Amino acid sequence: MTPRSTRVVCLVRRPDGQPVPGDFAVEERPLPPVGEGQLLVRNLYMSVDPSMRGRLESTEKHYTHNFIPGSPLDGRALGVVEESRCAQVPPGTYVRHQLGWRERAVLDLADTDGAGRIDTRLAPLPTWLGLLGQTGFTAYVGLTRIAHLRPGDTVLVSAAAGAVGTAAGQFARLLGAQRVIGTAGGPDKCALLVKELGYDAAADYRAEPMRDALARLAPDGVDVYFDNVGGEQLAAALHALRTGGRVALCGMTSQFGGDRRSADINQLIQAVLKRLTLRGFIVRDHDDLRPEFEQRVAGWLAEGRITARETVVDGLENAPGALLSLLGGGNVGKMLVRLAD
Amino acid sequence: MTPRSTRVVCLVRRPDGQPVPGDFAVEERPLPPVGEGQLLVRNLYMSVDPSMRGRLESTEKHYTHNFIPGSPLDGRALGVVEESRCAQVPPGTYVRHQLGWRERAVLDLADTDGAGRIDTRLAPLPTWLGLLGQTGFTAYVGLTRIAHLRPGDTVLVSAAAGAVGTAAGQFARLLGAQRVIGTAGGPDKCALLVKELGYDAAADYRAEPMRDALARLAPDGVDVYFDNVGGEQLAAALHALRTGGRVALCGMTSQFGGDRRSADINQLIQAVLKRLTLRGFIVRDHDDLRPEFEQRVAGWLAEGRITARETVVDGLENAPGALLSLLGGGNVGKMLVRLAD
Repeated sequence: MTPRSTRVVCLVRRPDGQPVPGDFAVEERPLPPVGEGQLLVRNLYMSVDPSMRGRLESTEKHYTHNFIPGSPLDGRALGVVEESRCAQVPPGTYVRHQLGWRERAVLDLADTDGAGRIDTRLAPLPTWLGLLGQTGFTAYVGLTRIAHLRPGDTVLVSAAAGAVGTAAGQFARLLGAQRVIGTAGGPDKCALLVKELGYDAAADYRAEPMRDALARLAPDGVDVYFDNVGGEQLAAALHALRTGGRVALCGMTSQFGGDRRSADINQLIQAVLKRLTLRGFIVRDHDDLRPEFEQRVAGWLAEGRITARETVVDGLENAPGALLSLLGGGNVGKMLVRLAD
Repeated sequence: MTPRSTRVVCLVRRPDGQPVPGDFAVEERPLPPVGEGQLLVRNLYMSVDPSMRGRLESTEKHYTHNFIPGSPLDGRALGVVEESRCAQVPPGTYVRHQLGWRERAVLDLADTDGAGRIDTRLAPLPTWLGLLGQTGFTAYVGLTRIAHLRPGDTVLVSAAAGAVGTAAGQFARLLGAQRVIGTAGGPDKCALLVKELGYDAAADYRAEPMRDALARLAPDGVDVYFDNVGGEQLAAALHALRTGGRVALCGMTSQFGGDRRSADINQLIQAVLKRLTLRGFIVRDHDDLRPEFEQRVAGWLAEGRITARETVVDGLENAPGALLSLLGGGNVGKMLVRLAD
């Protein structure tokens, strides 16, 4: 018997400053019937992403739609097909899609990916949203196609204990970086970066000015900066970069997040003096790289050369709290909500 | 009889805030003897450049040396060989070099350029420091190699009435831009941009916020931004740029200059959302493009398709004043000091 409704997380109102729990509510909403060529998917894991923060606002033009008060949130999720009206996708298939923040969703096949490729012998389900999902792919695209990482480079990654950061640091090493430096907030995360996540050195942005930290940890400079935060850390990186250095601009969590120290845009004078290239990117523009990415990362996982780090919260009703925790830096690695196993 | 000394402009002290006339002095300094392979050059024209402002400071690491209190300034100049100990360069040859801010200089041939190429039938001497010199070359490199200007692009140039700006606007059009928009300070310069310098529209940064001006003048957005100023104008351009837009970062006069309105570095979130590329450059890295540049620009000059604009001040003793005027936006086109004809 097909369920007629599903629980969803709705945006109640746009945040007034920092988001609070009351900005969100779990509600019961009807599910449409499963039409020809469609799938009913029961979500098992949902991705909680820093980019959701900007989508809570009304003002910022975004590369995707902003959330609308009164309507459900959405986001990357991984689910299992419960009912199928696509001959090629039998019930029981795992698929990834964009209709997270709800327990069930009805989807067109074209709006899913991974159908038939998600193999739990290769990696457990959460990894297919993390290192093998959009998160890992973001790190891979940023390092290879955007920042043109070359063997021997010194690489700096901000928000290095976050989802993209934990992937980027490990990938950078495997792609030939000579030295990999990460930034994070607090001594525990910094220790973890060096002990478990393959970073050579870590800088705690709460403990010292980033320019001082980088002068100490990268005295010969940095070739590639993978930027997840913007703000003062981006400015400090501009100073640390070597001539010809490359910056992959992936996000600016310091607009909203824990490290809100800003900087003057004219710090970009460093880009003139040192012939730097800064390039912003949106991972979905680079889907042609995905087969290469999946093959390499699956190989690294199989060989035990990379570690998938996840912070998992259980239950749809705890999803808003997971987002608030993420925005406050409460996660290590990929932040996920588990709805079922 | 070889002169034994020359008048030079010295830096007396580093500016305390805005530079003032007393920071500079004209002094008599000895000239070295003309050694084997060297030239004695009498300077005829000297270039006055916005990049000199940064070189007056002690703090900023620069791509070239900073000026030293008690020592002469230097900069691009064009002179005539008075005495030669190079067989291939007879007296009377025009050469460009880096030892401006003085009336005479002794140079190695390797430290000059243009020997034998500077042809006053093709263009008058000042043009060889302006449109056909480093200034025009900067505009050409920025548009072609850095910003990858394509036919049909909408191009925005800041400090459009300045030396590089007057060149960039005209070159952009001839390179196929569909629409060329310039920014300048004040209605007179803005009128000049449209009436005489080939711009389709001009925005007066003193008269309205740049974001409003660009929304009005480039409602469909901008493909290429040639940035000479940084600051608020750069931030406004980031908002005006279309997806895939390209920014050539040429300088940040708003660090020091007339338009000091700054902006938050996190405006670079626009670079993420719209996949922008920002690239800083120093023109001397691109000398391989110079033959192509000289051929094309000489052709445009010969066909009367471009206008060389210069602001010329006479006499070495007026050179510091010319620099102060330039930094206050007192020039249109290339700012030059004429020492002799």
